[in-house]
Amino acid sequence: MSLPQLLMLPGPSNVPARVYAAMCKPMINHRGAEFHDLFERMTTNGKKIFKTEGDLIALTASGTGGVECAASNVLLPGEKVLVPVCGTFGERLASNFRTFGANVVELNVGMGRAPAAAQVEEALRKDREIKAVAVIYNETSTGTTVRELPAIGAAAKDHGALFIVDAISVLGGDDLPVDKWGIDVCITASQKCLAAPPGVALVSVSKDAWKMIERGKPRSEYFNLLSYRQFAEKKETPFTPAVSLFFALDEAFQMILEYGVDAWIARHKKAAAAYYAAFKGMGLTFFADEGSRSNVVIAINMPPKISAKEMRDRLRKKYGVVVAGGFGSLKDSIFRVGNMGIVTPREVITTVSATEAALSELGFTGVTGEGLRAAIPVLRDF
Amino acid sequence: MSLPQLLMLPGPSNVPARVYAAMCKPMINHRGAEFHDLFERMTTNGKKIFKTEGDLIALTASGTGGVECAASNVLLPGEKVLVPVCGTFGERLASNFRTFGANVVELNVGMGRAPAAAQVEEALRKDREIKAVAVIYNETSTGTTVRELPAIGAAAKDHGALFIVDAISVLGGDDLPVDKWGIDVCITASQKCLAAPPGVALVSVSKDAWKMIERGKPRSEYFNLLSYRQFAEKKETPFTPAVSLFFALDEAFQMILEYGVDAWIARHKKAAAAYYAAFKGMGLTFFADEGSRSNVVIAINMPPKISAKEMRDRLRKKYGVVVAGGFGSLKDSIFRVGNMGIVTPREVITTVSATEAALSELGFTGVTGEGLRAAIPVLRDF
Repeated sequence: MSLPQLLMLPGPSNVPARVYAAMCKPMINHRGAEFHDLFERMTTNGKKIFKTEGDLIALTASGTGGVECAASNVLLPGEKVLVPVCGTFGERLASNFRTFGANVVELNVGMGRAPAAAQVEEALRKDREIKAVAVIYNETSTGTTVRELPAIGAAAKDHGALFIVDAISVLGGDDLPVDKWGIDVCITASQKCLAAPPGVALVSVSKDAWKMIERGKPRSEYFNLLSYRQFAEKKETPFTPAVSLFFALDEAFQMILEYGVDAWIARHKKAAAAYYAAFKGMGLTFFADEGSRSNVVIAINMPPKISAKEMRDRLRKKYGVVVAGGFGSLKDSIFRVGNMGIVTPREVITTVSATEAALSELGFTGVTGEGLRAAIPVLRDF
Repeated sequence: MSLPQLLMLPGPSNVPARVYAAMCKPMINHRGAEFHDLFERMTTNGKKIFKTEGDLIALTASGTGGVECAASNVLLPGEKVLVPVCGTFGERLASNFRTFGANVVELNVGMGRAPAAAQVEEALRKDREIKAVAVIYNETSTGTTVRELPAIGAAAKDHGALFIVDAISVLGGDDLPVDKWGIDVCITASQKCLAAPPGVALVSVSKDAWKMIERGKPRSEYFNLLSYRQFAEKKETPFTPAVSLFFALDEAFQMILEYGVDAWIARHKKAAAAYYAAFKGMGLTFFADEGSRSNVVIAINMPPKISAKEMRDRLRKKYGVVVAGGFGSLKDSIFRVGNMGIVTPREVITTVSATEAALSELGFTGVTGEGLRAAIPVLRDF
């Protein structure tokens, strides 16, 4: 057993009490009137957060299930998809498409960087057969965000390619007006910036995407979008959904809309600015290129001679603050702070102070207190 | 809004308060020590309920996701699987295998019946190429249970075929010793006889099943059993699991083990006997053949001239008791009472009395009170 922890992870994020309470509403029939009301409200509100007039499908699955849903529905076997890769989740996206027979054209961007629109345009110019461009908006493994996403979308459209965006870790935490940016399929998950528990993936589908989807025979039944569209007409899902998680996500959506979607996003940006100022103030450096740094995952290089594992353990056990290490080869060379969902100055100063204290105890010679000192002015107009 | 309801559905079933409470434990890191403890305890306890020494994999998905997992992992494209079909879920099982390229040999048993071992043996004799036998143990759509399941398993083994059992609606509610009955892959879901909310599918995997699985390249990443096995070594799942639902299911498993697995199953049998006596006492008839009647889903023929929808609406709105209609062509000709999870004499007498009252109000001339009168002696030694 352990005392309550502050989860400063790139997901799952901290769940508000009102969301927990909603999750415990008494179980209902997923084929009955109460579920129909829930389904309708959740879908309508979710579309406001996605900023889309398209369809929004909720799947009982983690975010990767949402990606598999896109990969198994949109392209026919052998069709080409361009996937920029700059980290673990880009690799996973490419791999998901390959599993369902797509011909994946990888655009290797390099770890810590984000694809530029010019790179995508060039790749599209070289290969007229590309039918879709699939991009990780926020690469959680390295803390980068694709700042040129709208221009990449425009390039895809010019080329006549479908634009698929994996926004699992970022929707709700940074700008992402799905329709305005021409995104045909946008995927996110419940446990990141939407502040609900994990287990629901959300997939938006545009008219153009439906045209592609209608061409093929289903390669998955569980993720068959045409079934979900058919059942959505009666406000149901084809298979028993995770009703309790739908209750939770429905409440989280209401909370975000009460706050205002743009204000909710703005909090993430303000908190991110404070984190970057604080860690820089402590003399630490960031893994991501300056122009591509994420507002929802801060990836910080470990200072020399300090064990990443020891620091994380100390943060968790002594200070009750849970941060993440790196993925794969970055396991011990970076640590990652999630800035998702419940984002207030309290989370920022707690995480910054605890990190300073833990590093100091482990012999880091950065000046203790400098991180907090650097964060305070940035937090002034939160 | 509606007042609390008694869910007498074939899933989701009523969730005990202690399971709701566990579901709201504070969120944890799914890559941390607390999750490892949860994973280990839940897996160990789950195996006791499955009565298997094999592996047990928990998926964030509904039961159909578990079926898709089996269908996409076990057989190579073109390999033959024998699937007895006697209802909607049998059809779905066959369809799932087809989607992943299997050559499905359907054994049409007829609605309301259950496959006999002799039928399976004959089908296997006729076709030496069959590599697997996949059976719905409890056909939820018609209220039948395969009473000759052990003999069917033995026939599959004699033939050298893998034995796959979809026990989604029944595991925990009727006899199903997985290893003893030679079941290689057994699938269930959280929201039926295990008394947890929906959203987790469980799949047991025998050594022989692993040998089959190891032959193929993955046709799904989300449902790739080899990934789940690999991550299980460090007590984790490959993708972010529905942590809150894992907490809930873990608590439900503990509850069932405190009660005793066999005693938990026995309650379902005793309650089922009371239901069958009660509805028969009311002059109603059952959809399923007498020898194949399910202990967890009681499928009752609607009496003539009474609208199934009106009866269900009255039960729900006036009496707060939610029962299910039929599937597809049976929609208005049967109603189904779930007998799953929290099963006490209280659920039985409430459901029986409410049904009698509702039918009486709708003009049914069966003698009111006769159902309860028939149930009472059967409930005596509950």
